[in-house]
Amino acid sequence: MTTPLSLHPDRLFSADPTQRDIARRLYAQVKDLPIVSPHGHTDPEWFALNEHFPDPAQLLIVPDHYVFRMLYSQGVPLEKLGIPTVDGSPVETDGRKIWRLFAENYHLFRGTPSRMWLDWVFSEVFGFEALLTVDTADHYYDVMAEKLTTDAFRPRALFEQFNIEIIATTEGALDPLTHHQTIMEDDWDGRVVTTYRPDTVIDPEHEAFTESLAAFGELTGEDVMSWEGYLNAHRQRREYFKEKGGATATDHGHRTARTANLSEADKRALFTRVVSGDLEADDADLFRGQMLTEMARMSLEDGLVMQIHPGVHRNHNLPLFDTFGRDKGADIPAPSEYVEALSPLLEAVGNEPDLNIILFTLDEDVYSRELAPLAGHYPALKLGPPWWFHDSPEGMRRFRERTTETAGFYNTAGFNDDTRAFLSIPARHDVARRMDCVFLAQLVAEHRLPEDEAHEVAHDLAYRLAKEAYKFS
Amino acid sequence: MTTPLSLHPDRLFSADPTQRDIARRLYAQVKDLPIVSPHGHTDPEWFALNEHFPDPAQLLIVPDHYVFRMLYSQGVPLEKLGIPTVDGSPVETDGRKIWRLFAENYHLFRGTPSRMWLDWVFSEVFGFEALLTVDTADHYYDVMAEKLTTDAFRPRALFEQFNIEIIATTEGALDPLTHHQTIMEDDWDGRVVTTYRPDTVIDPEHEAFTESLAAFGELTGEDVMSWEGYLNAHRQRREYFKEKGGATATDHGHRTARTANLSEADKRALFTRVVSGDLEADDADLFRGQMLTEMARMSLEDGLVMQIHPGVHRNHNLPLFDTFGRDKGADIPAPSEYVEALSPLLEAVGNEPDLNIILFTLDEDVYSRELAPLAGHYPALKLGPPWWFHDSPEGMRRFRERTTETAGFYNTAGFNDDTRAFLSIPARHDVARRMDCVFLAQLVAEHRLPEDEAHEVAHDLAYRLAKEAYKFS
Amino acid sequence: MTTPLSLHPDRLFSADPTQRDIARRLYAQVKDLPIVSPHGHTDPEWFALNEHFPDPAQLLIVPDHYVFRMLYSQGVPLEKLGIPTVDGSPVETDGRKIWRLFAENYHLFRGTPSRMWLDWVFSEVFGFEALLTVDTADHYYDVMAEKLTTDAFRPRALFEQFNIEIIATTEGALDPLTHHQTIMEDDWDGRVVTTYRPDTVIDPEHEAFTESLAAFGELTGEDVMSWEGYLNAHRQRREYFKEKGGATATDHGHRTARTANLSEADKRALFTRVVSGDLEADDADLFRGQMLTEMARMSLEDGLVMQIHPGVHRNHNLPLFDTFGRDKGADIPAPSEYVEALSPLLEAVGNEPDLNIILFTLDEDVYSRELAPLAGHYPALKLGPPWWFHDSPEGMRRFRERTTETAGFYNTAGFNDDTRAFLSIPARHDVARRMDCVFLAQLVAEHRLPEDEAHEVAHDLAYRLAKEAYKFS
Repeated sequence: MTTPLSLHPDRLFSADPTQRDIARRLYAQVKDLPIVSPHGHTDPEWFALNEHFPDPAQLLIVPDHYVFRMLYSQGVPLEKLGIPTVDGSPVETDGRKIWRLFAENYHLFRGTPSRMWLDWVFSEVFGFEALLTVDTADHYYDVMAEKLTTDAFRPRALFEQFNIEIIATTEGALDPLTHHQTIMEDDWDGRVVTTYRPDTVIDPEHEAFTESLAAFGELTGEDVMSWEGYLNAHRQRREYFKEKGGATATDHGHRTARTANLSEADKRALFTRVVSGDLEADDADLFRGQMLTEMARMSLEDGLVMQIHPGVHRNHNLPLFDTFGRDKGADIPAPSEYVEALSPLLEAVGNEPDLNIILFTLDEDVYSRELAPLAGHYPALKLGPPWWFHDSPEGMRRFRERTTETAGFYNTAGFNDDTRAFLSIPARHDVARRMDCVFLAQLVAEHRLPEDEAHEVAHDLAYRLAKEAYKFS
Repeated sequence: MTTPLSLHPDRLFSADPTQRDIARRLYAQVKDLPIVSPHGHTDPEWFALNEHFPDPAQLLIVPDHYVFRMLYSQGVPLEKLGIPTVDGSPVETDGRKIWRLFAENYHLFRGTPSRMWLDWVFSEVFGFEALLTVDTADHYYDVMAEKLTTDAFRPRALFEQFNIEIIATTEGALDPLTHHQTIMEDDWDGRVVTTYRPDTVIDPEHEAFTESLAAFGELTGEDVMSWEGYLNAHRQRREYFKEKGGATATDHGHRTARTANLSEADKRALFTRVVSGDLEADDADLFRGQMLTEMARMSLEDGLVMQIHPGVHRNHNLPLFDTFGRDKGADIPAPSEYVEALSPLLEAVGNEPDLNIILFTLDEDVYSRELAPLAGHYPALKLGPPWWFHDSPEGMRRFRERTTETAGFYNTAGFNDDTRAFLSIPARHDVARRMDCVFLAQLVAEHRLPEDEAHEVAHDLAYRLAKEAYKFS
Repeated sequence: MTTPLSLHPDRLFSADPTQRDIARRLYAQVKDLPIVSPHGHTDPEWFALNEHFPDPAQLLIVPDHYVFRMLYSQGVPLEKLGIPTVDGSPVETDGRKIWRLFAENYHLFRGTPSRMWLDWVFSEVFGFEALLTVDTADHYYDVMAEKLTTDAFRPRALFEQFNIEIIATTEGALDPLTHHQTIMEDDWDGRVVTTYRPDTVIDPEHEAFTESLAAFGELTGEDVMSWEGYLNAHRQRREYFKEKGGATATDHGHRTARTANLSEADKRALFTRVVSGDLEADDADLFRGQMLTEMARMSLEDGLVMQIHPGVHRNHNLPLFDTFGRDKGADIPAPSEYVEALSPLLEAVGNEPDLNIILFTLDEDVYSRELAPLAGHYPALKLGPPWWFHDSPEGMRRFRERTTETAGFYNTAGFNDDTRAFLSIPARHDVARRMDCVFLAQLVAEHRLPEDEAHEVAHDLAYRLAKEAYKFS
């Protein structure tokens, strides 16, 4: 016996008939707009080589930390889910076993966005009509495994089916961008651009810093042990990312939003300590902060949009990190502060109207207190969408409720899916479009915004603002 | 002239007809489930001796800091409400006068959970059909005073009438558990278990610490001035609480959630300083933090569930504390931090799937930022329900809205009433059941969860999760 | 072609028919109540001299930082909006050009309270029936400019038309209160009272402190370089503000809520360092904190209500501050703490039932965690309404949702408009009245409060509580 899997056409809309009707009308105008995905972590190799995806478990469970962390939190060992170990000690490799274990625990996702995204993938990508349960697990596995071997399920075919107008990936400063070049030189029309993410050559505390810095010098031919050479190496790579990878943006994932704007002499002295490895207590943090301001200045030169993603305590679970490595669901948000932290950078470049700095946060408390007032004042600042744990219906609702009254809609930057789960991308954009329509429908139903204006805003939030914020032409 | 007192059968349900209908259906399945009350402060003597409760004011006003602090905040002196003074200087003893003063000020409770709980007690326990006002105050007093003298209003009769399956009380480490033994040896079926709360023998800054430590040694026959002996004394008492009081859990009320995991040598050195009274600046706090980790390790040995209730600035009002003592409504929440604070304990035992650590907070800001991500990852962690000031309809709504999308439902631990107000216990559980149904009804109405799954979740939240989290068999 | 400008009679009410009907009934009873405006920044000169207001841009855009900061955040230079520069370098003076630029960007205010306030002013004060757009901008300008020259649009006529019962302005300690005296001695019935705001003679870090202190001494004839003389000077000025300006309150805008209660000797030593300019690191902050306690003690003597408005990082944008000066939209909220900060003051005077201390915050996180528990206990404390960035529909909703369950309605102090935008005052009070009715209607619809009690509360929130909290008789 099976339970039907149905994606209700009105899902996420308010049950109130007035609001629901308005939301339907708004959503009807935006649901088929092309997807603009300006920040994420899909693998450019998929689109360059266009090979078949692996088995269902390797595609949907093993790489998705939203999924396996939830099972882990309820006592399911990561080994049984096929998560590879650092030392190569064996883990489950039978995709079907992994899939069954997942199916047994699917009830854990009730009320979570993962459930919505997965049900969408099951229904809309794979065409299932019965809910995933222990009873239907094998059927699911068989059908998916089969479909993944067909041409319609190759990366480029899905890209087109998903109506993706442009997608940005994220690469480190040393990346050769081989796959992006392949895609650009190919006759395929799909637009896949890179993003310059230089954390390993900026963060003196990154385990790969020394090694990366040496490679940075070799790659650019600059003397990266000198301040000028180091900055020029960044300028070169930024240009390279623009030319060879179509980059329009940089991205910076720091522990905090701290910025600095030191005197020329202090910058040089700090840099000397950093590259000599002779760091004083606060130097690493100070250098990261100074480099945000330097990156912003380069953005003024070369036009790249700047993204700041701060506020995560990475690898909180050290025993698990030792066994399984990074990105295993043990990254936990920390309280964040922006008003003092961003002050040096904003004093330097915050009044530049042509600069786009897009701020993200994992600390919702700053939405109304700090981020909306800052973005509602500084020309250079825009607010990125709800991020990571907050990329969810309630997270989106809180974001609009707490930022709109101070920052309006036009100091926000549209939606980012920020994901490596390629198949879920349309579902994520759909949730964002629906929730923005829900918010707007409430404003209309409560006579706080005329419906014709709400239609314009819905379109802007679903499409235009992301393109403009990220300077996609 | 009187105003009717009516408890509407749909109270707390959304006014939206679709949501309300779903909520009704969900609630109908859970409203009559037995009450599982795994954490609270009722007096075991009530159930052991089964004596009549005192007069209405002594029962409902004098012990309820929710009630008298609200009157105090509006200028009503505590003396007039019969709150006993530390030095024994006289206060109002006429229950009727106290009751009238309360009735005069009953409007202050509009919009508060106390109002809901009290109206429930008036209507469902005492059968009143008119609202409490100045005009009905005497009638209320007379009827209640009369009923309290009858057998139907003795503790055990009410326990049975309330359909309580199990209730946990909370006792200090030195408690002989006389009343629990009486209850267990008696032929009464009611299940009343204790909880091991060792704050006075763990907190070096507690005014009773030195004295309690001595008693702890005498009671256990251990040399509690040695680290091994001290830990063994805890082990003994934990065992005693399990055997003589049916305990399945411990509870720890610390100023912060700080934990520590020192080396063996550092632990011993710290303990020596603590028992010698020769404390360095941070020692008391560090010792409390270390003991949380030790208690967690003992829980791994003996299976007791561990509860952590941090984040209160106790006795904020010192002049009032001097006159009236502890627990007089002047305990104020403080900002709390869990991510760094719990890191040492979680590194030590957080990956243990058989350990249950139940976290509480008075700082709602940490729900989505810290607690849901932690509980959505660590196998040992579960989230306790909204606590104290947040044990209220809006508090419950915020808890589900902010934790479910990241932690799901199954990393939460059902409801706790945490009260000494025995008569209000069914009302508190009823509010929790209703608000969970309200939250689920919204998910169903917005097509975010199928109704059949919502029924299962409603039952889990009302009954199963509490039993499992607290290992009640 | 024009779009209609319509203020829907049900605006802000829930779309749910049950809630909407209740909200209508509640609102109908309070919408025409006189306006009590106990805290704000209108210019008493308007009411004293009763001269015509200047052109529409000078009236509605140039002084309103809510408006011009939003345009600035999207790249509109402040010079083009006519914001005067510190050094007098020229800015746009053509009101019509400023108005057109504003009209072009009116879409930026979608979803903000400014949009609601401005639409109200356009519709109800000026009688427009078409929305402000590029196409209607000139018509708007012409009509407004014309009407502003008529008697019906003079300050006193509008004051009467707006049904203002009493309005409080805010003046510095040195203000001669000339205009208030003119108003009091005049035969006009309008009641305009002042508020004692002594920041410049209390904050040692204020740029005008030394100069102001000297003037303070001259004005009062007290030796303000001695502690007694300094305190007596305050006493004199407070009395002057009561007598000559009808003041019932003081107001204190500090960076934090910190208070202190030093020993007599420490106070004197601190004061000596402050007036000698020989400050130690923490002295300025400590002195501000001590003076809050001194002001509270004087309030016990003279009965003035005390307002505390803490938690703003003023002039965050230094380059903009250098060009345009204070109050230009670059004041950003900072995280705030009240529990420890207020402890010294509350220990000294918090148990006084006749003292009214009204607390404000820009940090919504403290509503449920700190402010509601404090106000729900201390007799001297009341909560001011949502302030500044939070004086908005969603801000008001969050305030009631997060404070009511712990503090009730009766530890809050009614509404403040806190504005210098005189024409928008009725719109702001109307939004507050509507949102309180929305909140109450939900309570009624969900059977949490009987409707007859909600009517009483609505009236209290709209009128009575403000009058009582500010001791207006």
